[in-house]
Amino acid sequence: MNDTFLKACRGEKVPYTPIWIMRQAGRYLPQYRAVRGKADFLTMCRTPELAAEVTMQPIDILGVDAAILFSDILIPCGAMGQGLEFHEGRGPLLSPAIRSADTVKKLLVPDPEETMGFVMDAIRLLRKELAGRVPLIGFAGAPFTTATYMIEGGTSKNFLNTKRMIFESPALYAALMDKVTGTITEYLKAQISAGAQAVQIFDTWGGIFSPSDFREYALSYVKRIIKDLRSWMKRERSEPVPIIYFVGETAGLLEEIKDAGADVYGVDWRINIDDAVRRLGGNAVVQGNLDPLSMFLPKEKIEEKAADILKRASSAKGHIFNLGHGVVPETPPQNVIALVEMVHRISKK
Amino acid sequence: MNDTFLKACRGEKVPYTPIWIMRQAGRYLPQYRAVRGKADFLTMCRTPELAAEVTMQPIDILGVDAAILFSDILIPCGAMGQGLEFHEGRGPLLSPAIRSADTVKKLLVPDPEETMGFVMDAIRLLRKELAGRVPLIGFAGAPFTTATYMIEGGTSKNFLNTKRMIFESPALYAALMDKVTGTITEYLKAQISAGAQAVQIFDTWGGIFSPSDFREYALSYVKRIIKDLRSWMKRERSEPVPIIYFVGETAGLLEEIKDAGADVYGVDWRINIDDAVRRLGGNAVVQGNLDPLSMFLPKEKIEEKAADILKRASSAKGHIFNLGHGVVPETPPQNVIALVEMVHRISKK
Repeated sequence: MNDTFLKACRGEKVPYTPIWIMRQAGRYLPQYRAVRGKADFLTMCRTPELAAEVTMQPIDILGVDAAILFSDILIPCGAMGQGLEFHEGRGPLLSPAIRSADTVKKLLVPDPEETMGFVMDAIRLLRKELAGRVPLIGFAGAPFTTATYMIEGGTSKNFLNTKRMIFESPALYAALMDKVTGTITEYLKAQISAGAQAVQIFDTWGGIFSPSDFREYALSYVKRIIKDLRSWMKRERSEPVPIIYFVGETAGLLEEIKDAGADVYGVDWRINIDDAVRRLGGNAVVQGNLDPLSMFLPKEKIEEKAADILKRASSAKGHIFNLGHGVVPETPPQNVIALVEMVHRISKK
Repeated sequence: MNDTFLKACRGEKVPYTPIWIMRQAGRYLPQYRAVRGKADFLTMCRTPELAAEVTMQPIDILGVDAAILFSDILIPCGAMGQGLEFHEGRGPLLSPAIRSADTVKKLLVPDPEETMGFVMDAIRLLRKELAGRVPLIGFAGAPFTTATYMIEGGTSKNFLNTKRMIFESPALYAALMDKVTGTITEYLKAQISAGAQAVQIFDTWGGIFSPSDFREYALSYVKRIIKDLRSWMKRERSEPVPIIYFVGETAGLLEEIKDAGADVYGVDWRINIDDAVRRLGGNAVVQGNLDPLSMFLPKEKIEEKAADILKRASSAKGHIFNLGHGVVPETPPQNVIALVEMVHRISKK
């Protein structure tokens, strides 16, 4: 079994730097588009066989060191009772937008196996199919990032409605966040119980805050989840699974982020990773941080950038190579394949 | 004359912290909307009397310490020969998108008085109307930020076409940037000659780069402009005007930004301003950095945040209070009025 990824998460010695790619099971792969041609996005998420099929593709095609479950961070919003639709080219639509005490009150904190059993089924299926080749990562959105979609009713440019709720009606925001946090905590426990060997919490929009607002309105809920997961794992499991915390636009927030209690911190590309390691306190395991659009560079330039990141990250307690954000659909797959080979080759030296 | 703003720019002692607000002449003001009801956005930019009228509004209404010319950073794109339109609720449209050697070749490096004389006329008119009440700030987009609009044909989510040009066709990007940089340099000189008493260079999208890419593909052109402006001012003027450099999402890039050669550095709200001062080298004049959406907080909370920023910025060589980005249209004007009063009152103590 290739357990390089799990060892790196724990800060143990590894023979080379493991790599996986955010959104590695995605539209840039023709093999993914072939499956997607037969089913819409939400059907793919809700059909364990299809989700498992596309999850496996990058393991074979890229040779990455971990699989990450194909799913979407908005699945729990549907389970909580909000209408959830995806339309080609328009992004997600959630309705009604959650902006009143009444809409918050109607939201459920659902039983994950009952309402999102298809996710856990996909995990169980994948563990069998992977048969130990590489570990399987489960994931969820962080409460704040999940809540932005629920409040805005979709994606947003400046998160006006979200910040207005936070700044104008902090008690309403807290009530919503209690439900979202409870839901995501139980969802991650269910994923781990089903066989996820690591979990990543995505706080994609955490970077829209000032440091003190980030601590109060985003980080505090992530800390609550991680604390809860840790005491639950201590009771329920012989070995805890690593927890990765990824925040988008991290650069101004690293001194806050380091208190999350995660095992691994995801770093986006807008900061030098050695600077991030230092600001995380010097003893962190980090994941990242190549600009996803660097994948359009000629291969020799990609290699220069990958080598620079590997060198800079050598100051960390552990490093998992990744892009600083999801791979974009227009990316040439051969460049991603080349990147995986480069990272393995260079880091073996 | 209130020259607190200019003194702060030069790092001189001031009786209180000066404040102005990015996009202070804007849609959040009913008085602005009244003018805008009579003319479309581009007509307002191109009519010196209308541009001057809305530029003056926040001086009377808010009591800010500087006026900033009402205009748009895309005006030079039109002067270079690209089609420029603004449609309500859709953002700017630039056509054709500049993505080929042919389209770059057709672009002009125009004479600013000939092609954008309405801007310089507005400046001359404003200097008369202001009659020394407060200084007048001129501005332009930084070459990279301007080029993103020219390449994408408008706004963008991930700047795919821009980064593809940079990474796939660096010589084409350099040719475009030579023309944009030349245009903006001459445009800023013309603004200063017409009477602008400070200039701000907006690199709103600079934060989409990794630090080394930012240095190479954005900062290098800003340095060229600032160097050129400085030697021109030395020759042509008895006293140089201060140059402010604002970058969006600065947090990971401050160690690069500090080499720009500007007098003042704009800081967005995603980082504590004392941290920014330290990372700019400790001897910087800074401008910022309240989250624009904090303007939805109750006034006592706005005051807490303003006081915190004033306290943190006391480590700087000089501080000009501002929001970390433009004020949003939904903002209650009375909160902006209150902010100006607070900053003056607290900093006088």
